[in-house]
Amino acid sequence: MNQTKLVIGLFGFGVVGEGLYKVLSQTPSLKAVIKKICIKHPEKPRSAPAGLFTTERDALLDDPEINVIVEVTDDSKAAFEIVKRALLSGKAAVSAGKKMIAEHLPELLELQETTGQPFLYESAACASIPVIRNLEEYYDNELLYALQGIVNGSTNYILSKIFEEGLSFDTALKSAQELGFAESNPALDVRGEDAAHKWVILLHHAYGIRTTTEELLFNGIESIGAEDARYARQRNWSLKLLAHAGKLSNEEVAAFVLPAFVSKDSPLSFVNRENNAVIVESAFADRQFFYGKGAGSLPTGSALLSDISALRYQYRYEHKKSKGVVPPLAKGYYLRVYLRFTDPEVAGQLPLDTVEEAFDDRSGGYRIGLIHYSKLCGQQWWKAEGLSLILLPDPVVEQIDRRRPSVRLASAERDLAGTLV
Amino acid sequence: MNQTKLVIGLFGFGVVGEGLYKVLSQTPSLKAVIKKICIKHPEKPRSAPAGLFTTERDALLDDPEINVIVEVTDDSKAAFEIVKRALLSGKAAVSAGKKMIAEHLPELLELQETTGQPFLYESAACASIPVIRNLEEYYDNELLYALQGIVNGSTNYILSKIFEEGLSFDTALKSAQELGFAESNPALDVRGEDAAHKWVILLHHAYGIRTTTEELLFNGIESIGAEDARYARQRNWSLKLLAHAGKLSNEEVAAFVLPAFVSKDSPLSFVNRENNAVIVESAFADRQFFYGKGAGSLPTGSALLSDISALRYQYRYEHKKSKGVVPPLAKGYYLRVYLRFTDPEVAGQLPLDTVEEAFDDRSGGYRIGLIHYSKLCGQQWWKAEGLSLILLPDPVVEQIDRRRPSVRLASAERDLAGTLV
Repeated sequence: MNQTKLVIGLFGFGVVGEGLYKVLSQTPSLKAVIKKICIKHPEKPRSAPAGLFTTERDALLDDPEINVIVEVTDDSKAAFEIVKRALLSGKAAVSAGKKMIAEHLPELLELQETTGQPFLYESAACASIPVIRNLEEYYDNELLYALQGIVNGSTNYILSKIFEEGLSFDTALKSAQELGFAESNPALDVRGEDAAHKWVILLHHAYGIRTTTEELLFNGIESIGAEDARYARQRNWSLKLLAHAGKLSNEEVAAFVLPAFVSKDSPLSFVNRENNAVIVESAFADRQFFYGKGAGSLPTGSALLSDISALRYQYRYEHKKSKGVVPPLAKGYYLRVYLRFTDPEVAGQLPLDTVEEAFDDRSGGYRIGLIHYSKLCGQQWWKAEGLSLILLPDPVVEQIDRRRPSVRLASAERDLAGTLV
Repeated sequence: MNQTKLVIGLFGFGVVGEGLYKVLSQTPSLKAVIKKICIKHPEKPRSAPAGLFTTERDALLDDPEINVIVEVTDDSKAAFEIVKRALLSGKAAVSAGKKMIAEHLPELLELQETTGQPFLYESAACASIPVIRNLEEYYDNELLYALQGIVNGSTNYILSKIFEEGLSFDTALKSAQELGFAESNPALDVRGEDAAHKWVILLHHAYGIRTTTEELLFNGIESIGAEDARYARQRNWSLKLLAHAGKLSNEEVAAFVLPAFVSKDSPLSFVNRENNAVIVESAFADRQFFYGKGAGSLPTGSALLSDISALRYQYRYEHKKSKGVVPPLAKGYYLRVYLRFTDPEVAGQLPLDTVEEAFDDRSGGYRIGLIHYSKLCGQQWWKAEGLSLILLPDPVVEQIDRRRPSVRLASAERDLAGTLV
């Protein structure tokens, strides 16, 4: 595609599509033009010439002059069909659709192989942070120990509000929605699904691991409240939705997306509001930290632009790591968690494997201890109303240290321990 | 070079060369081998098989099987000759030699054009931080407002020691040398030349600007003392050797490398010890922050490895920005500085354009005010013994605000003002 003019067919003109349109019109040096924009609702007023818009998919997909399809719709089913048809008809494809990509990675990889067309999606993970490209380009031959991140701007904004201003979850969510940092339907964000989609994509580029959100241990932040923020502040910790992937001593990879207390030792603790960040720990480069705007019209537009620009020199992801020895996802480790409950009856039923700290008062209480991965992944009990599960700093524990006994609990409670699962 | 085995001829086996050797031997997946290593001192004991070593350049440069020359010597003259001969004889070249690259950029660019061979040098700026590649790949079509960084690990280590432990410059330097964070001949580092070399390279990749350390306004940290650290701590600032490049309203670029007080608003204030960091501010991506080990055997080896790995898919820097409209280096702005002196006689002769704060006591004193670029760049007076010039936070000022008068000074001093230049 070198020297060739990039003629773009754009699907979607929401916040991201409009951002790309603006960014493109301010970078004439790229010599890329949007020829047609396919939208669902022609009745909405648009900040671009009416002649650009159509509601007909085929007007873009069948246009031989269009050589790049950019997909930024909010319909992951339609998005996959669009990308698939684009690649099959010899067009390059660029997408910001993390849900679609996370759900269809194997098919999308195969489509790239069979059609020889590039499919790029830097904007799908952490918007302005070039994390996919760095994992692809820079770490392909390194021993990657761990990847950690804050990969969802809306939840980080809400947690910042809860933490800094002591707001309730609902009030913080409303503030995020008013400022455009959370969708009107925030379920994907606040339940952790959006972060889990991104983590599925990054696990692939980091380790070659193919997984799905069904397999991945994750939760959102709906259960986080002002008490949890208070607890964090007392200990000088931050409160984040932490995406983690790290090698265990058996070379398996422990991976999850969960609310976590983060100590001030970690640069992630300073990542506030709608920002995202990623830490890469590797054998030789040691610890690297990338930080930037993780959402928003222009940052996402800018990441799309960088993908479009990379098409000029035939850049494509090599997906090298999925072609080598791929480490399995670990299932045999413990997490050190804080479990807050409002119903004291629940306290004795928490299936913790060890209890290191117990606190009770009239409003409920909490337990801190180790819990085995298998008691969380695929289980629903810990997502119930009135329970709040938050990781402690350095949460991954490979083996229980039997020399450190659990705290003594009242005998009635001890008898009940471990019965909830 | 795709599919072709990479056969490497390595020049230099100091800290960096040995690091690369270790890193390579732990990443067999790359399928790259070091065939020969050219060294100057065959009598030194080496941690690699003796058969690999030679003192004959031509044994590497004339070997048709060797298709990659990696140059990590400490002799910038010889390094240039080696890279030149490598490119001319159809070999790819990789170097960590910032001094050599900064001094020979125009010739090196021409050699790449005429020979068609790639020349990569990610390890020459900030070691493990992939800043050159990100500037090349990711921001090529963005409006880059500013680039800021801490690009020298030794000086940052020394400043951290002075700041945290109240050490003198000499004691802090000794500690850095003992830990291997500073060379036995630390002149290049502590006089700011190493940082200036890196900044010359990054100015080229960020803006297409071709400059030299002769033209660039820079200084090191030799004059920084415990008093300066105390002053910073009182104001809750950090003390860093700051590399800065930023667009002015006339589109010119103000660029320099100078000691600076950094406020806690800036993520650079948290970059301690031997770490490096870069902030990129651009039109759409907003503010991005990259952080990692900026020096050391393995981080540098890992950056070299990433260049070697990139040769497999014909990666090369496009140097796009130098081919477009290149903004000139600005010469018409002011800097807000803190000037500490030990000799009270000097106070009245400081050529500040405005004085905003004046302090005197028995050990000397300081002035804070604006000073025009032309009174610093190319001048030597401010590098004299007994003077310490440090930038204030947000130091670049395009015009003096005449509504804000200078503080009143004693008349004798006022009469002398501006006579030192």
